[in-house]
Amino acid sequence: MQLTRAAAEALDDADPLAGFRGRFAGTDDDGPVYLDGNSLGRMPLDTPAALARVAEQEWGRGLVGSWETWIDVGTRVGDLIGTGVLGARPGEVLLADSTSVDLYKLLVAAADARPGRDVLVCCADDFPTDRYVVAGVAAARGMTVREVPADVDEGLDPAVLAGALDERVAVVVLSAVAYRSGALADVAAVTAAARDAGALVLWDLSHAAGAVALDLAADGVDLAVGCTYKYLNGGPGAPAFLYVRRELQEELRQPIWGWFGQRDQFGMGPAYDPVPGIGRFAVGTPPVLAAAAVEVGVRLVAEAGMDRLAAKGRALTGLLVALADAHLAPHGVALASPRDPARRGSHVTLAHPHAWQLTRALVDRGVVPDFRTPDRVRFGPAPLYTRFVDVWDAVDRFRALLDDGGWTAYPAERSRVT
Amino acid sequence: MQLTRAAAEALDDADPLAGFRGRFAGTDDDGPVYLDGNSLGRMPLDTPAALARVAEQEWGRGLVGSWETWIDVGTRVGDLIGTGVLGARPGEVLLADSTSVDLYKLLVAAADARPGRDVLVCCADDFPTDRYVVAGVAAARGMTVREVPADVDEGLDPAVLAGALDERVAVVVLSAVAYRSGALADVAAVTAAARDAGALVLWDLSHAAGAVALDLAADGVDLAVGCTYKYLNGGPGAPAFLYVRRELQEELRQPIWGWFGQRDQFGMGPAYDPVPGIGRFAVGTPPVLAAAAVEVGVRLVAEAGMDRLAAKGRALTGLLVALADAHLAPHGVALASPRDPARRGSHVTLAHPHAWQLTRALVDRGVVPDFRTPDRVRFGPAPLYTRFVDVWDAVDRFRALLDDGGWTAYPAERSRVT
Repeated sequence: MQLTRAAAEALDDADPLAGFRGRFAGTDDDGPVYLDGNSLGRMPLDTPAALARVAEQEWGRGLVGSWETWIDVGTRVGDLIGTGVLGARPGEVLLADSTSVDLYKLLVAAADARPGRDVLVCCADDFPTDRYVVAGVAAARGMTVREVPADVDEGLDPAVLAGALDERVAVVVLSAVAYRSGALADVAAVTAAARDAGALVLWDLSHAAGAVALDLAADGVDLAVGCTYKYLNGGPGAPAFLYVRRELQEELRQPIWGWFGQRDQFGMGPAYDPVPGIGRFAVGTPPVLAAAAVEVGVRLVAEAGMDRLAAKGRALTGLLVALADAHLAPHGVALASPRDPARRGSHVTLAHPHAWQLTRALVDRGVVPDFRTPDRVRFGPAPLYTRFVDVWDAVDRFRALLDDGGWTAYPAERSRVT
Repeated sequence: MQLTRAAAEALDDADPLAGFRGRFAGTDDDGPVYLDGNSLGRMPLDTPAALARVAEQEWGRGLVGSWETWIDVGTRVGDLIGTGVLGARPGEVLLADSTSVDLYKLLVAAADARPGRDVLVCCADDFPTDRYVVAGVAAARGMTVREVPADVDEGLDPAVLAGALDERVAVVVLSAVAYRSGALADVAAVTAAARDAGALVLWDLSHAAGAVALDLAADGVDLAVGCTYKYLNGGPGAPAFLYVRRELQEELRQPIWGWFGQRDQFGMGPAYDPVPGIGRFAVGTPPVLAAAAVEVGVRLVAEAGMDRLAAKGRALTGLLVALADAHLAPHGVALASPRDPARRGSHVTLAHPHAWQLTRALVDRGVVPDFRTPDRVRFGPAPLYTRFVDVWDAVDRFRALLDDGGWTAYPAERSRVT
């Protein structure tokens, strides 16, 4: 691989997805090199008009009559995500609530479906909300949490997970792409191993959806949740999605018995009686305005196609790893992600003892990665709008920063928002 | 009270809040008489610009750096609601999740705070999601639900509720304004009676917030939730609010242990350790775009002032009751709301055996009420933008419809969205 800027430009020239970049805000000027799409995706240029249309036409003019259109928004946008991004079948995905709330709903439902089993398994290096939700559910039910250790750089070893599976395990909660390292789990193999042990796996797809090619149907996935504000570009705090395999839906009942999951909802009958399909996992009134923004982002991902996006993601992160090896490693910056492109999502993490200061300094030099404890800098080149030259420029500025030591002027103390 | 249209016009001329109407969409033309603000409030004209600003400037340009602004959105907008609408103190209200999810969170937290008590009390005529959430929590915990009967028209009799309170009751869930009749509960008296019995009351303020003058602090209210898309005009499916009395916050722990309630959130530490204040009731990433719309609506309510809004609400519903007595009662339309203005919120319900057909016919004649089972038509004249002449015109068209029998052409079968 050639590591010149000209070589990166040539990759951009040959990129079949290059045209998508111009459909996002902030890509037409001298703005920063944005490599934090793994935290908050860029805004599609069509989003403000979609918000304005729903607000002014549907709400402002249509008023309550627009519920004829809105009533199905959770399953309609859910299906767009399911079929366009996740490899799910229609009727298996719902847009609703936040990732944390959805995780809770499906975890309780899954634990209920495995009576007599008293262990929840999660990964010690998983994203905080995943670990906390598991801990909370376990505490409330008198269950035991079995935290499986993971290699912080390479992710969870399937053999280690297999060793944690026995007849006591009800549910395994696991991120398909690890938030810190970007390590990509073998979704099909883990799902099968857990099923063999009689357990259900609840996947968190937050860092995977829109970053890697998922095929939930083919992989036999039972349960999943995920976020839409990262690679799906749905906007800050956008509603989350949940997935339940069709064959499992009737068997499960989520714990928050809200009126939007009710059969003959406006009959307002005396007893909770959830609808048969994915709609039974709905709780309250769906977030109509926010869903309009999610829809715009998801349509762009579906139009680009997950196979092409995943391939470009591997190429972008591959270039980043090669450049880091060449220019950053000599300064003591270590790769903290899997080296094999087939084993990672669309972000790469680098480790350095002064990662916090380096991150702040990079932001001030027009490169936006993010910091993760204790000593990591994450670079998330979202394939929908990140160019190969962006990766090249980011590493080049990182190298310059290490050369000139400008980061040492930054305070070592972490701020509250990273 | 004079019942001429000229008299209604005179009331509008004297209305100190008349100027607010022009700040809402759809009020400047020959659109329908909208009396369904108790279901979905009108759109403030400032809302699209607020959405565009947050989308284009904060998200599109500011990208992930805008989290410095957004991180506190739940408590910031929560305080606007708390101090401007609910009579709460700062730090007692959080904007988060849906009403149903918030109800669940606080109900579980409250039940946990009353160990050894195994009964949940709710009202048999309460809104479905309230009854269903209570049923779901009771089922999961092996608790008993004690459903207190309510007069469907007059609301819950405090003496009946008092009879249901004993040493087994952990939590009472009750709507401050009944969704069907509009009956207003005596918030202070019920709270005190429950407290005397050792129980907590969790109020649903969905039909009360923005409709009646609440004073949660003075009334000693412990727990409440409510919706922002009705009288607060936050938009379809807008996020809900929850209230926890300051002195009670440290004692309670909600069941969905999400990362947004965590102390040193970005430390991402091993164990869940919730922040001390109202923020501990947060779960996932807050809905930033939707919150911007809520803020616009809440600011209008706070600017108008709840005392003035409540007074106008009583006057509007009073006129409606007087007109219904004069012109609709002879056609067999019965009042199904408390006759005493001090005992109702800002909507009035009328009963007629063919309420469904009458509702559809009214919509086609440019009057928008809503239908509620089994035989009710609800009229919600939101005091922020409804004129006295709107109420007059609505009843006049209702009378004409009854005179000419035009409603008989409508099918009796209810559609799925009402």
